[in-house]
Amino acid sequence: MGSFSVKPVKVGICGLGTVGGGTFNVLKRNAEEIARRAGREIEIAQIAMRSANPKCDIAGTPIAADVFELVDNPQIEVVVELIGGCGLARELVLKAIDNGKHVVTANKALIAVHGDEIFAKAREKGVIVAFEAAVAGGIPVIKAIREGLAGNRINWVAGIINGTGNFILSEMREKGRAFADVLKEAQALGYAEADPTFDVEGIDAAHKLTILASIAFGIPLQFDKAYTEGISRLTSADVNYAEALGYRIKHLGIARRTSEGFELRVHPTLIPADRLIANVNGVMNAVMVNGDAVGSTLFCGAGAGMEPTASAVVADLVDVVRAMTSDPENRVPHLAFQPDALSAHPILPIAACESAYYLRIQAKDHPGVLAQVASILSERGINIESIMQKEAEEHDGLVPMILVTHRVRERCIDEAIAAMEALEGVVGKVVRIRVEQLN
Amino acid sequence: MGSFSVKPVKVGICGLGTVGGGTFNVLKRNAEEIARRAGREIEIAQIAMRSANPKCDIAGTPIAADVFELVDNPQIEVVVELIGGCGLARELVLKAIDNGKHVVTANKALIAVHGDEIFAKAREKGVIVAFEAAVAGGIPVIKAIREGLAGNRINWVAGIINGTGNFILSEMREKGRAFADVLKEAQALGYAEADPTFDVEGIDAAHKLTILASIAFGIPLQFDKAYTEGISRLTSADVNYAEALGYRIKHLGIARRTSEGFELRVHPTLIPADRLIANVNGVMNAVMVNGDAVGSTLFCGAGAGMEPTASAVVADLVDVVRAMTSDPENRVPHLAFQPDALSAHPILPIAACESAYYLRIQAKDHPGVLAQVASILSERGINIESIMQKEAEEHDGLVPMILVTHRVRERCIDEAIAAMEALEGVVGKVVRIRVEQLN
Repeated sequence: MGSFSVKPVKVGICGLGTVGGGTFNVLKRNAEEIARRAGREIEIAQIAMRSANPKCDIAGTPIAADVFELVDNPQIEVVVELIGGCGLARELVLKAIDNGKHVVTANKALIAVHGDEIFAKAREKGVIVAFEAAVAGGIPVIKAIREGLAGNRINWVAGIINGTGNFILSEMREKGRAFADVLKEAQALGYAEADPTFDVEGIDAAHKLTILASIAFGIPLQFDKAYTEGISRLTSADVNYAEALGYRIKHLGIARRTSEGFELRVHPTLIPADRLIANVNGVMNAVMVNGDAVGSTLFCGAGAGMEPTASAVVADLVDVVRAMTSDPENRVPHLAFQPDALSAHPILPIAACESAYYLRIQAKDHPGVLAQVASILSERGINIESIMQKEAEEHDGLVPMILVTHRVRERCIDEAIAAMEALEGVVGKVVRIRVEQLN
Repeated sequence: MGSFSVKPVKVGICGLGTVGGGTFNVLKRNAEEIARRAGREIEIAQIAMRSANPKCDIAGTPIAADVFELVDNPQIEVVVELIGGCGLARELVLKAIDNGKHVVTANKALIAVHGDEIFAKAREKGVIVAFEAAVAGGIPVIKAIREGLAGNRINWVAGIINGTGNFILSEMREKGRAFADVLKEAQALGYAEADPTFDVEGIDAAHKLTILASIAFGIPLQFDKAYTEGISRLTSADVNYAEALGYRIKHLGIARRTSEGFELRVHPTLIPADRLIANVNGVMNAVMVNGDAVGSTLFCGAGAGMEPTASAVVADLVDVVRAMTSDPENRVPHLAFQPDALSAHPILPIAACESAYYLRIQAKDHPGVLAQVASILSERGINIESIMQKEAEEHDGLVPMILVTHRVRERCIDEAIAAMEALEGVVGKVVRIRVEQLN
């Protein structure tokens, strides 16, 4: 291999947890491979950590007293923020930028919530903030959308972007287990946090979707406008009925361009079982991107974990090394589009979004309910794609009636559901899950 | 949207066929979207074509008398080569580089065969040669491997990288049709050329695999060392037996790192039916990349066609626009690794490659043949994973005996097959298809 006459790039790593430890190890193990690509060696000049990582041999690497010592270290050219959260992380990233340093981060919450502030400061200072690892771990989907599909007008993005949620849904389907039961196992396996809200309620996915939508459509980051619905209320019954109808249930983040604005929504979704993305199981992530020229594409891989996420962090470092000598005015914009060329089209409220719907109605076992339900739908111009009526269940004598509708505005199905729930022959709430074809 | 104070980049398109026409149309239709990303407009300053494309409205676009007029046009900053072939295309690309112009090409044969010469000249002149569209059409897999996975030591790449071949295999499996029959339909549909050799014999796939291997491993382009085996001898019987064993047959390009060198081979391959890539059907392409940090990833989409390929050409143009103002010494290297840091490890001959094998043996209907076959394998240390023995077929009284072996060196299975074919109880040739797990 060649020798590297240029001096190494000096990098500081903040945080030596799962992703930080993985980044440290990959940079050390693949140092030669990386330098052969980048043309320069990447040297870990300093690390800042709350506690040692038993998986990392840090002997010989300078340790900072805290993250601010590292961020103020004049030797450091690139700061890698892997401490997570939005408080200290935001402060240190802004300080690093202020100090003229480039930043690489895996922090989706930070980018989704404070990205606009961070990128504005980065432009002012002429530095790069790279965040491939913030979405879908090791899958280079930020780069794919931002650069690889730059010729397209993107129509929609749909992704399985939370591995914990996908693990739970896969187990529920494959083994007929209940949500709470699988969640406990996921926590024991270390996939799910002690407080699983971020994962199972879709907040983590909404952070990532916010970023994907921004780079796909050229819109500002608007996490607060994302509609979020979790998987904690999904039952095995619905998983099974979906299967019988030829669908799989996945927790998807969906961003879609419409003539009125952009949809930005995270929720359980029925997908036809023969779609590739319906067959992405366990903790794997997958993102579909549909562009007007390319059609539908799929990017799949490990969405989390020590080394898969490190893979994205290191790729960002290589990108930064290559771009740091370039004209700041002519780099890939942080959010794919030039900051003065963002679209002002609004994010639509969920009531204005459009989808097909799976409805499960608990009906009393007497004739006429189906006719009433059908007429509620037809009065609102909602077409039915398929109906499945089961035998009365033994213990309560109720008949589960399952419908899949054609595409319709959400506020229209809301009205129909309210009308159904008011019927004398219908018991309890109507279960409603959105359906997408993704073709 | 913002205004663009910088003057447009002037691009010349050579060839207005399928890909050239698509590129012209996408650049026109998405001009605003593209400029919002690139920060500059991309202007088609001249086109050179043999004949008009009825799908393109070229009114107002200057036409060159021939490609060399375009390549010598001092206004043109980027030449887009979409005429195909290795003769005139090579000449015009070299001339464009010589004239100090950047080049975007979709020409896999040109890059696989003449890439080293072209990139050397490009380095000398400080210009960029971009070729995302040369592999897997609209899927940004060159960028994914070269940049998105730059932190990894890549272990292997395996891809369905010829849409025509995948269409034929999908039809054979789904409808039980014969190879020759589906090929005729593919030709009628315009998927396959009048001379289908490049597609069905794996030459087109080998061109693409050569490029993928080079950027994955940091090795020179060595198309002449690729092993190539087509799909024209595949029978419905083998497609069905594979299915019964839980496999699908795909025409894969596989590049693998071993301790002795690199495998580079294109051939029909049995893949477990539950792998995502086994379920990529029709003209779609898919590439799996396995890296030491990221694990296995999959990139899937349209591998050919007017606009999917144009999507990659235009993305390359946007890349070039961004990189043209940067320091030539610090750009992404054409083949991902610095030219003085390429590996000299050899490409292995097929006999030194390792795989599992599907064997179909036509045996006379008497006991003892299976024992003899088993002993031939065990003498060579080849383990059997599964055996399937069918009833004697009515018309010839022969018994098809199907075996799947564990992984073994190819020369070892060659010897075993020769020994089997020499048995008195075995009739004709043993059918051998390689098997890969791809997990």
